[in-house]
Order: sequence, then C-alpha cells, then structure tokens
Amino acid sequence: MGEWGLIAALAARMPPGPYARLGIGDDSAVVSAPSGSVVAAVDMLLEGRHFTLDWSSAYDIGVKAAARSLADIAAMGAVPTALLVALAAPGTLPGRWALDLADGLAAEATRAGAGIVGGDTARADSVLLSVTALGDLAGRPPLRRAGARPGDVVAVAGPLGHSAAGHALLSAGVTSFPSLVAAHLRPAPPYEAGPEAALLGATAMIDVSDGLVADLGHVAAASGVRIDIGSPPLATGDELARAAAAVSGSASPSSRTSPPGSPASLALRWALTGGEDHCLVATFPPAVVLPARWRVIGAVTAGEGVTVDGAPYTGPGGWDHFR
Amino acid sequence: MGEWGLIAALAARMPPGPYARLGIGDDSAVVSAPSGSVVAAVDMLLEGRHFTLDWSSAYDIGVKAAARSLADIAAMGAVPTALLVALAAPGTLPGRWALDLADGLAAEATRAGAGIVGGDTARADSVLLSVTALGDLAGRPPLRRAGARPGDVVAVAGPLGHSAAGHALLSAGVTSFPSLVAAHLRPAPPYEAGPEAALLGATAMIDVSDGLVADLGHVAAASGVRIDIGSPPLATGDELARAAAAVSGSASPSSRTSPPGSPASLALRWALTGGEDHCLVATFPPAVVLPARWRVIGAVTAGEGVTVDGAPYTGPGGWDHFR
Repeated sequence: MGEWGLIAALAARMPPGPYARLGIGDDSAVVSAPSGSVVAAVDMLLEGRHFTLDWSSAYDIGVKAAARSLADIAAMGAVPTALLVALAAPGTLPGRWALDLADGLAAEATRAGAGIVGGDTARADSVLLSVTALGDLAGRPPLRRAGARPGDVVAVAGPLGHSAAGHALLSAGVTSFPSLVAAHLRPAPPYEAGPEAALLGATAMIDVSDGLVADLGHVAAASGVRIDIGSPPLATGDELARAAAAVSGSASPSSRTSPPGSPASLALRWALTGGEDHCLVATFPPAVVLPARWRVIGAVTAGEGVTVDGAPYTGPGGWDHFR
Repeated sequence: MGEWGLIAALAARMPPGPYARLGIGDDSAVVSAPSGSVVAAVDMLLEGRHFTLDWSSAYDIGVKAAARSLADIAAMGAVPTALLVALAAPGTLPGRWALDLADGLAAEATRAGAGIVGGDTARADSVLLSVTALGDLAGRPPLRRAGARPGDVVAVAGPLGHSAAGHALLSAGVTSFPSLVAAHLRPAPPYEAGPEAALLGATAMIDVSDGLVADLGHVAAASGVRIDIGSPPLATGDELARAAAAVSGSASPSSRTSPPGSPASLALRWALTGGEDHCLVATFPPAVVLPARWRVIGAVTAGEGVTVDGAPYTGPGGWDHFR
C-alpha cells in the first residue's frame, strides 16, 4: 500500500465528527469551540507499559488510546469534540493492523460524540500513541480537582477495579470473565457523566487513571481536604469477587472476614488501587440528589489525605506511593 | 529528583502563556478560543529521524519540536495560542536534560506568543516528542492549501534550504557557518507572517516541512493548479553557496553554469528540496503589494504539478517522490 497510501487510508477511516470545521488534510484542523474556550489534554499509550501486542488487538489499542484522553475531557465536565492522534509504529506491522487501530480510535471517538481531526505517523521500534483530546465546556467553568469541601459526598460513575481484574485474569491465563478482560483491553469511560456532574453542581472531579486512592489523593491535596472512603460501597457485586477467587485459585470468594491475601481482599485492592478504569469520581454537596449511575463511596472532611474505613490506606498503589 | 519531582520541575518551567485559562496541573487545560473555533495540529519529533543527541542539545530539541507544530498553526493564518507536549525518553537521561528541553519548548512557544498548557511523560528506549499546537483565527477563515488560482504569485517568508545546508555541514563536519547549523538545529519559523498573509489576502499557504517542491506540490494538487517556480529568486545570497562549496570541497561557489554536482547546484537543491525550514510559502493575487519579508519565487498557472524554470523537477525530494 505504501506509506502515503496507508496514511490516506487511515485518514479515510477517521470520522471528523460534528465539531470539525476542517478535518485531516491540511497543515492544521479547525474545530468548533462554541463557548469561546477549548479544553485540551494529551496522553501517551506505550507498548509494554499500557498494552502488549499479545493481549491487545489493534482495535483494542485504538479504543484504549482514545478513551484515556477523552476521559480527561469528561473529567473537567466538558463534552469531547475532537482527537488528534500521533502514531509511531514499527514498519513491520501490517497495514491492516493500522487500519484496525484507526477503527478502534474512530469507534471510541464516536461513542464520546467526538471526531478525529488530525494526526501524524512515524516509524519506531515499538508502538506508541500520543492522543490529544479537545472539548467544550458549554459556557460552564471547568470542574477541577480543587473545590471539594468538608461535608461533600464522594461518588463514582463507572466500574472500579475492573481493568485491574482484567489485567490479573490475563496474567493468570484465566479465560473466563470476558467482561472484566474487556474492561482492561477496552475501557469505556462514562463520558456523559462528566457534563452531568457539572450540571448537578459537583465541586471537584477526576478520572480514575492511577487508581481510586491515588486519584482521590490528588483531589484531597488540590482541595486541601481529607477524603474518607468506605470499603463496603466498593464491593461492587459478585463478579469481581469471583474473578479474585479464580485468580487466587481459591473457592471462597464470599469470605466476610477478608484476611490479607483472600479473594475479597484482592477484589477490594483492585477497586482501591487499580488504574485505567477511567471512571469518574466527583464530590457533590450533600443535598444533591444523584442519578443512579453515581454511587456514593465516601465523604469529604477536614484534614488531608485519603482514608479507607477510617485508616490511611497503606497498601501498594496508595496515595503516598505517588508523592 | 524522582519522576514526580521532575514532572513538577518541568511544569514549573512551562509558561502558560496569555491564552491559558487553566494550565498544567489538572486532568485537562482550558485555553481561550476567542473566535469560537480552535486551530489544532500535532507533529512528532523522533530521535534518529529528526535529530540526534550528538548534534542537538536538549534545548535545541525543545525548540525544534515546538517550532514544527507552531508553524502548522501559522500556516493556516492563525495565531498560536498553546502547546501540549508528550515526551517519551530513556530513564538514563539526566533530569537536567529534561529541564533544558523544557526551556527550549518554553522559549519557542513564547517567541510564537503561545504558552504550554499540558503534557505527559513516559519512559521509552529513545527520545520521542509529540507536540500539539493550538491557535486562533481571529474570526478569519483558515488559509488552506486549496485556493491558489492561475495568475497568483508565489511568495515565501523565511529562509529556504538553510536547514538542509546545516544538516549537510554537520554531516561533513564543517564547523563554520554557525547560522546555517543553527537553522537546522533550531528552526525559527516566521510565525507573524502567517496571520499577515491572511490579512494580505493570500489564497493558499503551507509551511515548508518536506521541502519547497514537495510542499508546493501539495498546494498545486489541493488547488488544482500548476505552480512554476524560478531558480534565480531562490539563490538567496552568498552564504548558502559558500556552504555548498565548503561541503563539496570546492572553491568555486559562484559558478554561473551550475553543472550537476556543482556547489551552486547543491545550494539550489537545498532550497528546492530541503525540508524542516518551516518557512511559509503562500499564493497571493497578483495585485497584492507584499511586505519585504515575502519574496516572490514563482507564479500559479493552469495545469498540475510543480515546475522549476519551466520543467518538472525530477531530482530527489521532488513532488513525485512523495506521491
């Protein structure tokens, strides 16, 4: 197909989306910014760090690369409008692989209501994507990490720990639990929940990319507050516990005592520290009536840091780990 | 310093610029888009392809990475507003290297009137930068590659062939001609000339990244016209000819016959096919009175492709090479 033919084929698979005024094909794109400002974030996705070619199809990688950046837009309370995609990849990858990647990027951008308006390609020894996402705030102020106040409730939209569970299942060679594996390979952030949180009066928001405790640590630090989360609301159904049991080789997923190393403890750890779910966690004034997709998992108090069931979380992946 | 300390130190060196409403530190940045749309482009800069660590300092690499993307904004007739920078680099590079890189990015962004509002960092085996630039059109339509009309004049702002000359000098180990070497290591696109061209009524514009003939080929193809350029206006002074003589080991830089392989022929080839100058080339209606920085180098006629002195350019780096 040739490099230029491939670029043309890739461009043809990229939907410009409803906000593009000028899409791929010139020196720059032009994207509508109806409210007079543009929200922008960039994220990299690297082979060997964020995915492996053994586990992830090209389509999966496209979805994940798009989702990571699009979730950053939603986490500001903004509507995603457009992506720009830089792709470095070995010349030995077949052209088909790149087209499948484009399809994954396009599908996730479309799911978020956005398009793909620009890109760049280059040869490299391994696959690296750098995706810039743009968005619009519809005239609202951005919903920042700072802003949480003592008395606020903490609520999450989207699954917690599913991506970590999927990674553990893949690592253990457990082929059941396809929805958890899919959550790792193709995260599906709840984009609409971002602007929804802003409209509901959320005081702070972040997307869970590093893990719940770590990311709430960012909110606590930026807001100058303490965030207390409780483990009972995190035990989100049987599936995570059964996956933890399968990974542990244990047959007692429903242990109520949760000793360290037990499946229940493992499932809780996934929910507390597993990254890459790209769900949204926000703080709301206590009087706000939350739609069903927002699950209350804790509260904001005076102080600093993040506690789980009243005690600082000291396991791996906690907030201190990132300081 | 640690990875998180380094990221904080990098962020502290990045000026947000006059358009940032929210800079580095949250899930996304917010950038002013005063005219209701945003111009956006992404470009990658790879070690081994666009620079080597032997020739380029970290500061040089920062300047070049910023300039490549910022020039794409100017080439639409827009004013650059902000950069987002994704950096992958080996963990063995010293922290000082990354800080110098940030200083180069910051200096070039500032020269363009823009700031740096977001970023991402990761470990990789070699250095790779992906820079997204944003800009504002001040209410004007974007100046595209399509739009050149027969009768228009072709004019260029900024040096042609200087980057290629600098590369050849570095390759030959010639240490004189510091300004040409600098033009290769730290290109300095004439950003203000972009909006200026739009205000003057330019009909099409592109920045010279692949080489003059190749990039004018994009304009010719998008506009459905032929572009004729003349070699005499490209002989931009003695310096390029003297550099060509130095690289060729020849003492006759001023040969008027320009046989193939002569220094004059080499200098012309640099001007015709050397990429990475990131000067701006535009087409203007013939009645437009151009400011001094715009040098007329040719004309638009009916037909297709690019000719030099009336004949299709057949050397390496010509337009056909890229098709």
